[in-house]
Amino acid sequence: MPDTPIGPVDASVVPRYCGPETFARLPRLDQVEQAAVKILGIPFDTGVSYRPGARFGPGHIRASSKLLRPYNPALDVSPFAVHQVADAGDLPVNPFDIQQALQTVDEHVTALRSDGAKVLTLGGDHTLALPLLRAVARDVGPVAVLHFDAHLDTWDTYFGAPYTHGTPFRRASEEGLIDLTRSMHIGTRGPLYSDKDLTDDAVLGFQVVRSDDYENDGLQSVVERMRRRLGDGPVYVSVDIDVLDPAHAPGTGTPEAGGMTSRELLNTLRALVGLDVVGADIVEVAPPYDHAELTGIAAAHVGYELLSVLALNAR
Amino acid sequence: MPDTPIGPVDASVVPRYCGPETFARLPRLDQVEQAAVKILGIPFDTGVSYRPGARFGPGHIRASSKLLRPYNPALDVSPFAVHQVADAGDLPVNPFDIQQALQTVDEHVTALRSDGAKVLTLGGDHTLALPLLRAVARDVGPVAVLHFDAHLDTWDTYFGAPYTHGTPFRRASEEGLIDLTRSMHIGTRGPLYSDKDLTDDAVLGFQVVRSDDYENDGLQSVVERMRRRLGDGPVYVSVDIDVLDPAHAPGTGTPEAGGMTSRELLNTLRALVGLDVVGADIVEVAPPYDHAELTGIAAAHVGYELLSVLALNAR
Amino acid sequence: MPDTPIGPVDASVVPRYCGPETFARLPRLDQVEQAAVKILGIPFDTGVSYRPGARFGPGHIRASSKLLRPYNPALDVSPFAVHQVADAGDLPVNPFDIQQALQTVDEHVTALRSDGAKVLTLGGDHTLALPLLRAVARDVGPVAVLHFDAHLDTWDTYFGAPYTHGTPFRRASEEGLIDLTRSMHIGTRGPLYSDKDLTDDAVLGFQVVRSDDYENDGLQSVVERMRRRLGDGPVYVSVDIDVLDPAHAPGTGTPEAGGMTSRELLNTLRALVGLDVVGADIVEVAPPYDHAELTGIAAAHVGYELLSVLALNAR
Amino acid sequence: MPDTPIGPVDASVVPRYCGPETFARLPRLDQVEQAAVKILGIPFDTGVSYRPGARFGPGHIRASSKLLRPYNPALDVSPFAVHQVADAGDLPVNPFDIQQALQTVDEHVTALRSDGAKVLTLGGDHTLALPLLRAVARDVGPVAVLHFDAHLDTWDTYFGAPYTHGTPFRRASEEGLIDLTRSMHIGTRGPLYSDKDLTDDAVLGFQVVRSDDYENDGLQSVVERMRRRLGDGPVYVSVDIDVLDPAHAPGTGTPEAGGMTSRELLNTLRALVGLDVVGADIVEVAPPYDHAELTGIAAAHVGYELLSVLALNAR
Amino acid sequence: MPDTPIGPVDASVVPRYCGPETFARLPRLDQVEQAAVKILGIPFDTGVSYRPGARFGPGHIRASSKLLRPYNPALDVSPFAVHQVADAGDLPVNPFDIQQALQTVDEHVTALRSDGAKVLTLGGDHTLALPLLRAVARDVGPVAVLHFDAHLDTWDTYFGAPYTHGTPFRRASEEGLIDLTRSMHIGTRGPLYSDKDLTDDAVLGFQVVRSDDYENDGLQSVVERMRRRLGDGPVYVSVDIDVLDPAHAPGTGTPEAGGMTSRELLNTLRALVGLDVVGADIVEVAPPYDHAELTGIAAAHVGYELLSVLALNAR
Amino acid sequence: MPDTPIGPVDASVVPRYCGPETFARLPRLDQVEQAAVKILGIPFDTGVSYRPGARFGPGHIRASSKLLRPYNPALDVSPFAVHQVADAGDLPVNPFDIQQALQTVDEHVTALRSDGAKVLTLGGDHTLALPLLRAVARDVGPVAVLHFDAHLDTWDTYFGAPYTHGTPFRRASEEGLIDLTRSMHIGTRGPLYSDKDLTDDAVLGFQVVRSDDYENDGLQSVVERMRRRLGDGPVYVSVDIDVLDPAHAPGTGTPEAGGMTSRELLNTLRALVGLDVVGADIVEVAPPYDHAELTGIAAAHVGYELLSVLALNAR
Repeated sequence: MPDTPIGPVDASVVPRYCGPETFARLPRLDQVEQAAVKILGIPFDTGVSYRPGARFGPGHIRASSKLLRPYNPALDVSPFAVHQVADAGDLPVNPFDIQQALQTVDEHVTALRSDGAKVLTLGGDHTLALPLLRAVARDVGPVAVLHFDAHLDTWDTYFGAPYTHGTPFRRASEEGLIDLTRSMHIGTRGPLYSDKDLTDDAVLGFQVVRSDDYENDGLQSVVERMRRRLGDGPVYVSVDIDVLDPAHAPGTGTPEAGGMTSRELLNTLRALVGLDVVGADIVEVAPPYDHAELTGIAAAHVGYELLSVLALNAR
Repeated sequence: MPDTPIGPVDASVVPRYCGPETFARLPRLDQVEQAAVKILGIPFDTGVSYRPGARFGPGHIRASSKLLRPYNPALDVSPFAVHQVADAGDLPVNPFDIQQALQTVDEHVTALRSDGAKVLTLGGDHTLALPLLRAVARDVGPVAVLHFDAHLDTWDTYFGAPYTHGTPFRRASEEGLIDLTRSMHIGTRGPLYSDKDLTDDAVLGFQVVRSDDYENDGLQSVVERMRRRLGDGPVYVSVDIDVLDPAHAPGTGTPEAGGMTSRELLNTLRALVGLDVVGADIVEVAPPYDHAELTGIAAAHVGYELLSVLALNAR
Repeated sequence: MPDTPIGPVDASVVPRYCGPETFARLPRLDQVEQAAVKILGIPFDTGVSYRPGARFGPGHIRASSKLLRPYNPALDVSPFAVHQVADAGDLPVNPFDIQQALQTVDEHVTALRSDGAKVLTLGGDHTLALPLLRAVARDVGPVAVLHFDAHLDTWDTYFGAPYTHGTPFRRASEEGLIDLTRSMHIGTRGPLYSDKDLTDDAVLGFQVVRSDDYENDGLQSVVERMRRRLGDGPVYVSVDIDVLDPAHAPGTGTPEAGGMTSRELLNTLRALVGLDVVGADIVEVAPPYDHAELTGIAAAHVGYELLSVLALNAR
Repeated sequence: MPDTPIGPVDASVVPRYCGPETFARLPRLDQVEQAAVKILGIPFDTGVSYRPGARFGPGHIRASSKLLRPYNPALDVSPFAVHQVADAGDLPVNPFDIQQALQTVDEHVTALRSDGAKVLTLGGDHTLALPLLRAVARDVGPVAVLHFDAHLDTWDTYFGAPYTHGTPFRRASEEGLIDLTRSMHIGTRGPLYSDKDLTDDAVLGFQVVRSDDYENDGLQSVVERMRRRLGDGPVYVSVDIDVLDPAHAPGTGTPEAGGMTSRELLNTLRALVGLDVVGADIVEVAPPYDHAELTGIAAAHVGYELLSVLALNAR
Repeated sequence: MPDTPIGPVDASVVPRYCGPETFARLPRLDQVEQAAVKILGIPFDTGVSYRPGARFGPGHIRASSKLLRPYNPALDVSPFAVHQVADAGDLPVNPFDIQQALQTVDEHVTALRSDGAKVLTLGGDHTLALPLLRAVARDVGPVAVLHFDAHLDTWDTYFGAPYTHGTPFRRASEEGLIDLTRSMHIGTRGPLYSDKDLTDDAVLGFQVVRSDDYENDGLQSVVERMRRRLGDGPVYVSVDIDVLDPAHAPGTGTPEAGGMTSRELLNTLRALVGLDVVGADIVEVAPPYDHAELTGIAAAHVGYELLSVLALNAR
Repeated sequence: MPDTPIGPVDASVVPRYCGPETFARLPRLDQVEQAAVKILGIPFDTGVSYRPGARFGPGHIRASSKLLRPYNPALDVSPFAVHQVADAGDLPVNPFDIQQALQTVDEHVTALRSDGAKVLTLGGDHTLALPLLRAVARDVGPVAVLHFDAHLDTWDTYFGAPYTHGTPFRRASEEGLIDLTRSMHIGTRGPLYSDKDLTDDAVLGFQVVRSDDYENDGLQSVVERMRRRLGDGPVYVSVDIDVLDPAHAPGTGTPEAGGMTSRELLNTLRALVGLDVVGADIVEVAPPYDHAELTGIAAAHVGYELLSVLALNAR
């Protein structure tokens, strides 16, 4: 790791509307010797069940990240100065073969992590969480999953397909990738197929914080529950952007009314400081339904807070 | 009423982006023998004073309702399983003759209600509330009106026209359709013509909960006031989607800043459980101004919570 | 076949912005005893290689078809009065298994055709042309394919996948479904992978009319070439909406500049009168990229002209 | 009439994105002593049968007219320098009473014309053509109507309503306002209710140039037919913006594929030089469906060419 | 000052979608003898560093202000009846020379204020705050700046340029225009260049209320801090619309997630009653990125609350 | 120059919706040893007089170029295989100082050309044509300018500013950079300030082909005039995307109705084969006003045809 990480392009020399097209205008992975955190785009949406488009998510989040500046005053950290952060580009995966796609993701992320780096993934749809958890758990064993989402994503199959954007955490549970005593959903809301969805999910062991809990109990209460639940072990953070209300994230595939504000989400993520975050993803950004980069900007800020947490934990 | 109601099309067999185009993919009314709740579209916007477009509202809300699943975890009820719910299609009304249109609505809704069914109307503009109240009050006498709206809608005339989207509750009061000791507006905000608007409205007897009251007093306080006000008698619920902030419902005709979130609205509606809801409408969804079905989805969820309340009350 | 077909809903009684949501507001197939022409939606876009969204195509084309009136003055025919035309709804197909999806299409279309009806398919992506040709050719033997498209769609594989929206006519050729001495592409333009694309295509036997030929030679010349090429045998018409310039059809998955106008396309289709059209599809309408139903309206008019040709040929 | 008309605001002093919000940034009528041509907005769309929104048309066309510069090289004329042209603002008309609205238009336009001025109307929907013709014909007797439109607009009634946007020329014919030996439709296309629409229209006496005639016969041929038909008498020009293809004018209420380009329309209008144009309107611009002022700009240019013709004829 | 100010056009006579295009349909400045409050548009965005477009802001805010009615129930005041309010139109400034533009603004606003009037400016970008403060401070000495913004806007230079939308309050501080013991930022959030941004800003003396403080401390707490800070002296209010969350104000140049709701902002502004507000601006509304006038409506309501405060203070 | 140029990323391995974000997914300039053609983005729009946004043009054109495949059948050439083509990224230029920006462009382009490479510039606004011509003419002397544009762009000053997007060819003429005996405008239309614009332009020596000439004389005639005019000497091609009709290119700053189709433009460009093209630019793509990449795709195809011409001329 170099003493002085290469940071983003200097906005006082290169206007923000210029390239490069990397996340936060950080260096590409091939421009640095090593990186402590690697940001990987995975353009894949073959697992979606309603509105497609998340295959254009990585590029859209990057384009929406150009205003991110180097210092995070909310956490008093410069996330790109503590250690090297780099953009690993897009991983090409087969849109016509989900199984092969999952394998490509697992292999590639495993390779990216082989030097001890952490990976922040920009999706793509939520199917990706499964191979991402496989790659992480292979190293560190079962991890707590902190899952921000309007939905449980613990359904079994859909059209007979076991690997879709509605099933990753069911599969991951079955494969023993998740520490279910420490995992939780945050932000769930909206109708389900039946109450069995809830009991099935409860059997898996997830704790649930509903979007309504923010309304009724307040942010501080949620944060406390979250920290208590996650404890000291490794945590994988998976953020489905549809955890936000459609007003804050119209550009997504299965929007549900009654969701969180971006302010609630960002503040919740900041409370991860001190926890052992071992990887993270931001998924389900579907640009064809976005407006004025609203959703992309929210996703970029989610990434920025996660990177800030990683930097503080590394410091 | 059949023992087992026909529910929505099964999404594990028919993907949600397929037809049918009914609300929540429920059966059409002509596909069932009888229905306890009938969902009626009324494509009519001749009564609007600013942005038109609500004539396309019913189809838009239905298209935005495809993600509604059968079980409501917030209220622990499967609203389509308790009794039969069916989509009664669109009622064609004359766009060039408001009086005739109102009469058509009254007659048709009266007919739909003649077997004891309740009607949930998808507008169309707020002018429709008048004939809908006529049809309801003819059966059950004056009803409490629970009116969610940025506006009072108790103006007298507009351009000399007594029947527009700004006057339904004034007319309904004059016609004795409303139990004014139990009625209330929730979510009002924005400028008025004069303080006389408020005093006129107060003379009619409506109690007012402003959008700001949610900010200052909290959801729980509003809910308590609402339940206290509505009491035990019959309640008609009229939801003008512009009660939501334009961020949550851009697709409407007379938007006002400073409005409610969809989370506040849905939670307020859930507090109607146990009250005698005798009918409801969702109006003023103007698709040409919507984006990514933002407004349509909010309206669909409003409908879903109302249907859940009706199911719980029937159970 | 009844003497008097059931036509579309009468727009002087039911305003056009009301339901039903069928194509041109025609009856549903289950509302008529028999139909000479069946319009089938197939919401499927798993075969696309760039912008997805065509799974929402059938509903979008239907919504955009509401202005279609019953009489076609350009061809002096009332296409819904000559014989019964009905909307067969959407065919649910598996989005996660292309092979299974193709088989479902083949079986269902075969069933729809079993009473001698012709099928007009609303896609969906161009992958669908393969099972549609299978169903048709099983009855009538190899057919001439009249293929309107910016692209050749005779590529071999993509990511190792043999069945995608870029390969249907290659596969169909290999399977002997196409009469290659009478088939042609119309409207091709834009870059290819290599000149081998052209020679491969030529080996298959397709004749090519480029979009530029309309500019240089005029509509009449193209029409003459087309009629000469198609001759007397059975013709299957496949219209990829991207044959239109993006100005006329922005809502599609792989747009190419320099395309045809809708006026050129509609006039070309009218020249099919007298030819033995045995089936047709309109594919690659991707609503998330459409604006003001521009693309949907063009597609609806394409369908209307094809239905008019079928009616005249039946008369 | 002053010797030197007051022209538009000077764009080398006041950038074009500044106010005033008048057409082409011309003076308001109250800023000049007299005007030879008065541009009048009539925000009214109660007569539409499908997509509303044209009530916002006048403001939209004005906003889209800011780039119009003072000299027209195609006709070698400075239309604002020959005589005074001024913006007469918007005429408020009752949206809830069509009959009263028509009367307001007639009276107001009659007043505007009382000093010999000509009126160019920005609609608003096509219903307006009737009172506009009444006002004109009262002065000059029956006029030739040069009607650019995708539709005939000579239907009888709609929902029993005699005065809608589909009927103005039928009513005007009945009232003897039109010189039917010299009138014509240009640009018609798309389906009709029945062949009776055509024969009814033919009985009225309109000659028809279809949009397809531009494709098949060329612009020059159309122009010659038009000039021959219109002859020497007074001509009223009514431009429904849906005469353009939806690609050129998405922002309209009843779009039909296969339409004219803006280049064809502008060139056709220029051929009116020398004819006795006594009034004109541009209607059916529906801003909620426009994009990037595409439709508004086309309408603004239509207005500019008409103003140029009026200036040349006055010179 | 006349006893009875000329108010907005009466909406019961002139529908709101008609002109005039002034703010809230108030009279133009040239239509009144004198005005206590003048609303000035300054279409200028040469100072922006990311998304341009605010040059179209003034016209957009005015178009979005048409629904503003005359009576403000939240503050029990009719802001246009207490004293004369008028729209001073747009000030043309040179887009190619920032220094000259600033001078034009200073001179023109000084002239507008010379009769004791207060000016509410509709921008335009935030660069304008500097000349606006110059004009104000020349009269009343250093003023407290109440600055609503996601950003500090106290940066030094950008590309060597001292006068941009990121520097006005730094320059104003250096010029002694600001009473730094009483000034504050409200609503800041998002990443900075370094912690030096904060310390530099603190050296200038601004107090900071972050957007998160609303979440954690509540509106009432913020309001109290604000009133305590501002004290009794003159206050200039500068509202960068990006203080709102992008969900509430997508149409702006440098959006940051995690922002305020419009309800929070409007309620905060209402707490200014009783303070000595000497001028105000609303800047950074960039219409090309707006949807359905969402941002414009929020800005119009901000203006309305500020005008209400000015009226109450004058009363 | 390497024998085998590095071509675009292989779309059969890397789906087109993946990165890299270079033009046509070509290699970056720093990935190749040398390049015969360098594609340079210049994000700059400080010179625009109406709608800004072209600063986002280069990234938008690149994003819209992802579908460009390697072989051009219309010209039978693989433009990336003949010689090395590479993407030189974005040139950061000062948005607050036009003069300095022009100098940066001149210097940087001069450097890029110093090894004999040709430069294709993606703008940015048309101001850029001046420094681009300076860089070219310094090498090869005065060049013929083939200028596609709705406007003449030979105005003198605007607001006293000599260097704006309306003046580059006036300035270039004055500086002796243009061979005026061989230069021409193609596609002009729309109103001018006065007939002096035309005579001034004629004095400069430009020949004019109007958009209408395509309608009246046909493409072939224009092409012949163009080739005759350009002759054998060096030609610089400058394409303002507003030469296209707004239907084909809504995303631009000063749109004019009555423009060319993309098919006409692409076919005209192909006729440059054999001429000595020494440089080219594509300017005035303003993404905030684009829809579904309509304008971006047209611009990308313009670039592709220009690159094909350069390849054929090199071969």
